[in-house]
Amino acid sequence: MCLEINPIGVIRTPFKSSDKIPIQSSKSDTIAEVEVFPEFSEGLDSLDGFSHVILLYWFHKVRPHKLKIIPYLETKERGLFSTRAPSRPNPIGLSIGKIIQIKENIVIFKGADMLNDTPLIDIKPFVPEFDNRLDATSGWLTDSFCSEKHDYLGDDRFLD
Amino acid sequence: MCLEINPIGVIRTPFKSSDKIPIQSSKSDTIAEVEVFPEFSEGLDSLDGFSHVILLYWFHKVRPHKLKIIPYLETKERGLFSTRAPSRPNPIGLSIGKIIQIKENIVIFKGADMLNDTPLIDIKPFVPEFDNRLDATSGWLTDSFCSEKHDYLGDDRFLD
Repeated sequence: MCLEINPIGVIRTPFKSSDKIPIQSSKSDTIAEVEVFPEFSEGLDSLDGFSHVILLYWFHKVRPHKLKIIPYLETKERGLFSTRAPSRPNPIGLSIGKIIQIKENIVIFKGADMLNDTPLIDIKPFVPEFDNRLDATSGWLTDSFCSEKHDYLGDDRFLD
Repeated sequence: MCLEINPIGVIRTPFKSSDKIPIQSSKSDTIAEVEVFPEFSEGLDSLDGFSHVILLYWFHKVRPHKLKIIPYLETKERGLFSTRAPSRPNPIGLSIGKIIQIKENIVIFKGADMLNDTPLIDIKPFVPEFDNRLDATSGWLTDSFCSEKHDYLGDDRFLD
């Protein structure tokens, strides 16, 4: 089965190359903009009032995936699906942006962690009652969060 | 630009028809299983230890999208991207499952809110440091959460 995706917009960020990009939106203060293509802009109505959006997008510059990798914040090999590495069988990224402003078909947000010109696949409202998990634990990442300070910036291991 | 998705597995749930499915994983106690196709099962290594997984999947039974809809929990029309309705330009669903057990290529989880035989696109670990937003607000849904009791079950408005 092959399913087709057609981008609904593009994400414009200050990150032009693969190096030194924040590895997660929660670790980024960078402001960027989503341009939703005009034919979809009506779908943004009522998004104001939410504080955050979930952005789904296509990792458009990644290398082919491997099922065992050494992810960011780690020195050991881990199974790909226990990581947030961008090289995946279906390279779909998920970031949570804090909405700064919505103007017509443009959403300005804080928390950019993707390359410039990233194809946008979907926007969903972040709903705390649906999306927070206050009892969640962090698996192998727990040691990483506890043991040392990180700059939470990526490198070129997954990107061309 | 057209991008291609190839499912990496299938989600098997008790929900055989479109009616009375929980509308969100956070509102579901239903246990179900993800079957990752065997050629990807190595990627599940190290996922044990995390308490929750993010499942991305294809809404395989939805009607074509409209940009203005009356979503669940609401009586007014809202812009599609301010809702979690399954009929979307790129019909990708996002649920957060609580891991019950992982055995070879099967992940048993609690919180199913998708139809049986849903094509799986990606599994990511839910990482509270990355994915919780404790300061988030709920936009137009705020009134809905406050004003009355809901059963948080869907109907057939988006599904065939």
